[in-house]
Amino acid sequence: MSTPPGQVDPPPRLLMGPGPINADPRVLRAMSAQLVGQYDPWMRAAMAETSALYRDVFRTANEQTLLVDGTSRAGIEAALVSLVEPGDVVLVPVFGRFGHLLVEIATRCGAEVHTIEVPWGQVFTPEQVEEAVLATRPKVLAVVQGDTSTTMCQPLADLGEICRRHDVLLYCDATASLGGNTFETDAWGLDVVTAGLQKCLGGPSGSAPTTISPRAADVIGARTHVEEGIREPGDVDLGTPIASNYLDLAMIMDYWGPRALNHHTEATTMLYGARECARLLVEEGLDEAVARHARHGAAMLEGLRACGLTVFGDVAHKMHNVVAVHVPDGVPGDTARAALLTDFGIEIGTSFGPLHGKVWRVGTMGHNARTDAVLTTLACLEQVLRAYGAPVTPGAGVGAAREVYAGATA
Amino acid sequence: MSTPPGQVDPPPRLLMGPGPINADPRVLRAMSAQLVGQYDPWMRAAMAETSALYRDVFRTANEQTLLVDGTSRAGIEAALVSLVEPGDVVLVPVFGRFGHLLVEIATRCGAEVHTIEVPWGQVFTPEQVEEAVLATRPKVLAVVQGDTSTTMCQPLADLGEICRRHDVLLYCDATASLGGNTFETDAWGLDVVTAGLQKCLGGPSGSAPTTISPRAADVIGARTHVEEGIREPGDVDLGTPIASNYLDLAMIMDYWGPRALNHHTEATTMLYGARECARLLVEEGLDEAVARHARHGAAMLEGLRACGLTVFGDVAHKMHNVVAVHVPDGVPGDTARAALLTDFGIEIGTSFGPLHGKVWRVGTMGHNARTDAVLTTLACLEQVLRAYGAPVTPGAGVGAAREVYAGATA
Repeated sequence: MSTPPGQVDPPPRLLMGPGPINADPRVLRAMSAQLVGQYDPWMRAAMAETSALYRDVFRTANEQTLLVDGTSRAGIEAALVSLVEPGDVVLVPVFGRFGHLLVEIATRCGAEVHTIEVPWGQVFTPEQVEEAVLATRPKVLAVVQGDTSTTMCQPLADLGEICRRHDVLLYCDATASLGGNTFETDAWGLDVVTAGLQKCLGGPSGSAPTTISPRAADVIGARTHVEEGIREPGDVDLGTPIASNYLDLAMIMDYWGPRALNHHTEATTMLYGARECARLLVEEGLDEAVARHARHGAAMLEGLRACGLTVFGDVAHKMHNVVAVHVPDGVPGDTARAALLTDFGIEIGTSFGPLHGKVWRVGTMGHNARTDAVLTTLACLEQVLRAYGAPVTPGAGVGAAREVYAGATA
Repeated sequence: MSTPPGQVDPPPRLLMGPGPINADPRVLRAMSAQLVGQYDPWMRAAMAETSALYRDVFRTANEQTLLVDGTSRAGIEAALVSLVEPGDVVLVPVFGRFGHLLVEIATRCGAEVHTIEVPWGQVFTPEQVEEAVLATRPKVLAVVQGDTSTTMCQPLADLGEICRRHDVLLYCDATASLGGNTFETDAWGLDVVTAGLQKCLGGPSGSAPTTISPRAADVIGARTHVEEGIREPGDVDLGTPIASNYLDLAMIMDYWGPRALNHHTEATTMLYGARECARLLVEEGLDEAVARHARHGAAMLEGLRACGLTVFGDVAHKMHNVVAVHVPDGVPGDTARAALLTDFGIEIGTSFGPLHGKVWRVGTMGHNARTDAVLTTLACLEQVLRAYGAPVTPGAGVGAAREVYAGATA
């Protein structure tokens, strides 16, 4: 390459798909702060503040609340590889693509994985889950809260009690739902929860906030192996080694904890971003943020319906922050999506597997859970639908959304 | 937490340790650019540009040149877990702490790991490495180029030829050295190389540039397993599954490649930063950047010597970008380092294991390979040495560094 390209200069996009979405500009500004050393006293204090902020976001008292330095998928794998030993039984209720991902990752950890499934667009009852727990006797129940592939939000409130009664560890992937839907780590009895920044938290992908209950921390800590090169007299190997070093939560707990044992070099810029995402949510109030997502999600849902589109799945169990609609007959789904991107700068998504090309997914989350973002998207989608010959009443989508807002603020 | 803390507001620090160092402000600015969707045509083009830039930085024609979304340690583990199957033999020449890390990670991958060692502060001859290759017949030779724990830079030019002659894959961890020391992926016959941004590349930790030779890509591609949920007719499982999903380079190659198969959600802000780090290096010229690191490294070395400090290790094989000196007798090493941080805002490091508390490590890398950073560090260190009773000639350190600069520019 003789002449390098110019500075990064992305086109302006309004990201109204299932995530990632536009980052809150305040998060991006926080990420432009200069670095400090990872053992600087200020940095250790910033890590402690970040833990405390995520305790609020996860609604937990868990001391072990930290960041895994990778995308949300890294958080999922860190949880599973640290909890699961080869041969352990893991039960996964699969209601979309991200349930399959839990199966995939748990299988690579050497688990004996059992699944239960419902058709895409539905969720499980507590009774279905308990029956499967009794039939398979898992060490870990691994469940997604909100699966963006179907937009469904699995109720979790009863699962923790079931898991404790049967001595099962409960892992939850809250990537797509946290911050935009009610979430209660402690009240629901969740043992390990992981998330990402790129959905309702309004940041970029690349950091995975994670919280670990005391009983899960005991299970993980019983597999502590301190690295050669930083090992000290008195360090003894405990239990079966965790198969990954990078995603070893026992090591990451020792790095975040008082021993501050060297592990990875902290991804400081991502930590600044993760801290700001949580800080803005706490400043707004978690309940207020969930209500905001509910309001804009409802406006988008009614707006899409008024555009003549049919909502996919069980609306009663939909996440607040994303809705899927069937692509209307005769409309080329991917071509119409591309037109919305090219002509209006607005991105919406399709889905995976059985739904690929059959639905559009429209998000209202994080920084983009805003009235102007909802109304603009509906206005432009109306134009695209018309261009591809779908029957659409002029102004109906925007009007229906306005009615939701009027009702919500009345 | 009823009242959230304020915006992130790190204290100004001049980071002159072994890394991380201050990020180039241009890199931080690039990272404040707004996000786009990961399948936006612009984003795919930005990924291709980033690959091309890192081909220049790594000096390679490898098509498979990409980012692993985690810190440099994630890149190391991705390389090893993707190359190594349980039971494979891996040979690691250990000349510092990061050699031990390669042993640790390869062991967790299930490898039969053999090591050779030299005392800390030395490197290996090609003959020593070839003898060990003949004795252990490894599948993979895994070697660090620059080990910051000892500051040594292992010569690699002969190792590729040895590996090809004996049909061994050659992996190199170039995290600490890339951009500040001569590096030739193709000319030296390296198969997989991984790095990080937080050393000579002048960015924050959190992205691991990685390049993979065609023969290594064949070995890794022969272990391709497409995930359930995005699998298409015709996808068949190949070979032994890679133990990690997140760090599966076969999947990451398919994500970066023409199939663009969904894997992690791209850590877009880190990608912007990684792209800018490489762009600035290519704009400067790789040879010029190496010469800059050599010049400022020499100035720091002579300045420290003139302060009465003794350099640790084999200076002929030292990395340009970091130097270790013995803590003078009678000076409390960690207390003096803390004083330099507290009173002058300047961070230097100590080391690990046998060198902990016995040496100071001083870096001159990336954005901080600058005259003012070198002279300021020497000026303030002189004050600290004096305060702790070390014999130091006033102005000697700064004077000696100035002489190096005068000679270099003559």
